[in-house]
Amino acid sequence: MRDIKIVGLAGGVGGAKLADGLAQVLQANNLTVIVNTGDDFWHLSLYVMPDIDTVCYTLAGIANPETGWGRINDTSNVLGELKKMGMPDWFKLGDADLAIQLVRNIYLKDGLSLSQITEKICKKLGVRVKVMPMSDDPVQTWVYTTEGDLEFQEYFVHRRCEPAVKGFLFEGAEKSSPAPGVLEAISQSDAVILCPSNPWVSIDPILAIPRIKSALQTRKVYAVSPIIGTETVKGPAAKMFQELGIQASALAVAEHYKGLIYCLVIDNIDRNLESDINAIGIRTAVTDILMRDRADRKRLAQELIDLISNDIKG
Amino acid sequence: MRDIKIVGLAGGVGGAKLADGLAQVLQANNLTVIVNTGDDFWHLSLYVMPDIDTVCYTLAGIANPETGWGRINDTSNVLGELKKMGMPDWFKLGDADLAIQLVRNIYLKDGLSLSQITEKICKKLGVRVKVMPMSDDPVQTWVYTTEGDLEFQEYFVHRRCEPAVKGFLFEGAEKSSPAPGVLEAISQSDAVILCPSNPWVSIDPILAIPRIKSALQTRKVYAVSPIIGTETVKGPAAKMFQELGIQASALAVAEHYKGLIYCLVIDNIDRNLESDINAIGIRTAVTDILMRDRADRKRLAQELIDLISNDIKG
Repeated sequence: MRDIKIVGLAGGVGGAKLADGLAQVLQANNLTVIVNTGDDFWHLSLYVMPDIDTVCYTLAGIANPETGWGRINDTSNVLGELKKMGMPDWFKLGDADLAIQLVRNIYLKDGLSLSQITEKICKKLGVRVKVMPMSDDPVQTWVYTTEGDLEFQEYFVHRRCEPAVKGFLFEGAEKSSPAPGVLEAISQSDAVILCPSNPWVSIDPILAIPRIKSALQTRKVYAVSPIIGTETVKGPAAKMFQELGIQASALAVAEHYKGLIYCLVIDNIDRNLESDINAIGIRTAVTDILMRDRADRKRLAQELIDLISNDIKG
Repeated sequence: MRDIKIVGLAGGVGGAKLADGLAQVLQANNLTVIVNTGDDFWHLSLYVMPDIDTVCYTLAGIANPETGWGRINDTSNVLGELKKMGMPDWFKLGDADLAIQLVRNIYLKDGLSLSQITEKICKKLGVRVKVMPMSDDPVQTWVYTTEGDLEFQEYFVHRRCEPAVKGFLFEGAEKSSPAPGVLEAISQSDAVILCPSNPWVSIDPILAIPRIKSALQTRKVYAVSPIIGTETVKGPAAKMFQELGIQASALAVAEHYKGLIYCLVIDNIDRNLESDINAIGIRTAVTDILMRDRADRKRLAQELIDLISNDIKG
């Protein structure tokens, strides 16, 4: 059989892990990872792209395994000095991580687009699969909370996701265009995988770009549930479901993606939800979806590819 | 006698040393240091002010004593990573030094002027005397050389002053305004001291701002020779005189500043030049002008203040 071409949609840590699994089982030119940029922000005078960095560092094998974000064995000399100068240090940019921000900002000053910059940084970091920001246009995720409207990183990192969420805005998404190559990658793919990133703030910003959303509707879209039981492995997804009045579960994820996804991959412990998910028109696949290490990522990715291959042969 | 108010004009290392000496002998509010900004440049996506930093670090007691520029005990983690990413590393920005550049760029993004930013950074670094950029407007020093026209830092750091100079341009100086407070500091001063910085590329850019030049002409201006014998302590001043067809000497410095300065302070070994310098209408004072350590800086500064006091009483 010919090689399967996959597009993955990803946000931060969970999405990056599955992207790494897919990169382990697919030829580099058969995988494109489209990454949320709604969490980009200007910080310490620099344009920072946290999700893009997490995906790139993970794919390059240089991510900090303790945190999932940032770079392994990094130091914090600059941040320490900045703190002494009264500057905010809540966003933990290590020195090597800061170097990547400077590289990005050097290219920005040279007039390069976010997608051109991402391509250059990936090349220098040795990332072989294609990583693309969802858009070269500015999109800003806002989190509406009981304590006011917060820019995403302000909510996520500075406020540690503590304020209860009421809703979200992806400012600029409606009129933004997919980055060059995004629609082509989708249209040439055999399947699209929504990686197990936060549906509300990692995947939804990507779906908020109208031409990406409509391109996805022409494909078979698979999602890996970011919820196992009633919890997320990392991050506030389960907390957000609760705060929005929805019981966090794989079924809630299915409801969230209803009309878009063909199949939801859920964890063994959620097997009992299969019939409810199927009842809303979404197929299910059941396996161990927790990615504890690189081998787990590869195993899950291989199972996904096998599933998709069978569906294609179907 | 009432306190003497001094304005010092300074560029990099030599000027910073005398500024430190003056700061040791004068009350903080009696000293203003006006610093060259013609060597400012955009580098690694950041606005960098090398002379301002050298003066501030020296006055804060955090300058690297080995080099005269940069910060003491600094690390180079970010620059090391940038080099791996293919970025230029010829401008040796240490991590703590880089933190200062980020602070400046954060304030720039906030809309602050160069003089407002300098004031804030000085305060945070514990610099008590007033340090001002010569202007808030952009001025760019160009060095015309036998190998083409080079931006100052390209000539000075990247090319290590190797190309032979043919002339200089202070682009933007003609139409730039003195930074707020510069003219007031000059008009309220008892004397202005041209610190022993490079006449061609440290002091001349300041003098190229028309309203600073004319303000100085209302004051008694003293200069400390940056040339001892036929050499400079540091930097390319002597080499520049030679390449421009002028024998480097304290007399050449006197000729350079003729019409502007009242008195030139020269080294003991140049005592024989006194009559020639006096003959072109410039007084002389003779002492040990080499500043080997902080005590030397203080001694020379005290001698200057004594000289000026006597002239005022005179």
